[in-house]
Amino acid sequence: MRTPDELRDLVERYLEELALTPELGGLEEAVRYGIVGGKRIRAVICLAVGEAVGAEPERLLPAAAEPERLLPAAAALELVQAFSLVHDDLPALDDDAERRGRPSVWAAYGEDVAILAGDALLAEAFRLALSYPNSGVARELAQATLGMIGGQYLDVKGETADLARLHRLKTGALFSASVACALAAANVPEREQAPWRAFGDELGLLFQIVDDILDGDGYAAAEGAERARELSDDAAARAQARLADVDGDTSVLEEIVAGLAARTS
Amino acid sequence: MRTPDELRDLVERYLEELALTPELGGLEEAVRYGIVGGKRIRAVICLAVGEAVGAEPERLLPAAAEPERLLPAAAALELVQAFSLVHDDLPALDDDAERRGRPSVWAAYGEDVAILAGDALLAEAFRLALSYPNSGVARELAQATLGMIGGQYLDVKGETADLARLHRLKTGALFSASVACALAAANVPEREQAPWRAFGDELGLLFQIVDDILDGDGYAAAEGAERARELSDDAAARAQARLADVDGDTSVLEEIVAGLAARTS
Repeated sequence: MRTPDELRDLVERYLEELALTPELGGLEEAVRYGIVGGKRIRAVICLAVGEAVGAEPERLLPAAAEPERLLPAAAALELVQAFSLVHDDLPALDDDAERRGRPSVWAAYGEDVAILAGDALLAEAFRLALSYPNSGVARELAQATLGMIGGQYLDVKGETADLARLHRLKTGALFSASVACALAAANVPEREQAPWRAFGDELGLLFQIVDDILDGDGYAAAEGAERARELSDDAAARAQARLADVDGDTSVLEEIVAGLAARTS
Repeated sequence: MRTPDELRDLVERYLEELALTPELGGLEEAVRYGIVGGKRIRAVICLAVGEAVGAEPERLLPAAAEPERLLPAAAALELVQAFSLVHDDLPALDDDAERRGRPSVWAAYGEDVAILAGDALLAEAFRLALSYPNSGVARELAQATLGMIGGQYLDVKGETADLARLHRLKTGALFSASVACALAAANVPEREQAPWRAFGDELGLLFQIVDDILDGDGYAAAEGAERARELSDDAAARAQARLADVDGDTSVLEEIVAGLAARTS
């Protein structure tokens, strides 16, 4: 089993070496700029789930046994995440001129190029997801993307009264997909997926609450910092409990959950 | 065999009744607004190719025999076309406040909603394309979408010296996909696809040259109206010749080619 850091390095190298569609031409520079940076949490989760289900010897899934086989799915998740950030940063949406300490894509390349670069990131994500023999990875990705867009719409329109629904869409959908895409890529049978999917749902909630605690908004603003910390501890405990329900070596995923709960940036 | 008008009615009804992903919530109105109107040429071509390949009795392809089975692919093509129009109309790109005689999506709903509605149209297109057992339709769609985006980038950047390349990407890619998606949905074997694909490439060129003649720009501006008419006649003749190379009843497609060559709006 590889450590989370080793899995992250794998993703990072894969994204750096990823060949984009030649037809994008000069747009490629802005697309690559939009991929740089970030902790690759979603990709790491995807690879770790792949290792966990592949590590069960009696299942004999060669596709899942090597994390390399999960890399297109993991990278596709990061491209969808990058697509959403590139578009959300636009002046008409969140109007963020900075992202991860440097100009956001529109600030660096102009709004026109940023709109097209975001579109290209989404289409490239599907191209990668469609490199599997079955279409399950791409299906999970489409569903998650539509959820994210619905969540961003609620946010843009200020319909933030139902914070749980907003976050389930805006953040949770892609975390759940990080798990679901690994299951699809590894051909885990439907009947064995329930505890894994429950795990994915808890992960998204955990990530969001900790995010809000670090930023002092969302759950932390609505419930107070102390109560938000209780909520994140509960989500982490439920995520660990779900891992206890699945077959396979989940030690790396347990470490990821603990890391998400304890993260300070 | 159904006439082009009957095929268009089929698509129109399918799009009207299409259930969108519930998670889009209030964004659905703008997404539906973005789908309204247009001649549905790409969808009609897709359905007509499906009928032509399904009409060959010895192939025994039930999936292709009913045009209804091609409808998700045909609708997905229209959603990708709608996505590109919604984003291209944005102030940062072509800045068109009007589309088909009424306010464009951003003019009606705001730029923020238009960006998200375009994103949703693209993701919904993939969701539809992924409703087939094989992932060929979605793969063709991803490739065409990336080509379109690359073409729009050339246009935005004023890199219009190579008019043929620009149009092959911006318009041709989705016309070619209209044919290719039908082949994929109908499981036409790779070895029989070459003349069909050549036909699809001619269709896109034909459509674009006639468009330029009607608008007085592009090919018509670069080559003169008379020469542009010769070029469109040549493209139509080549398209008809390609149809003569394929098996199946291509009478409806011949009618579509003649209609594209003679259209006045």
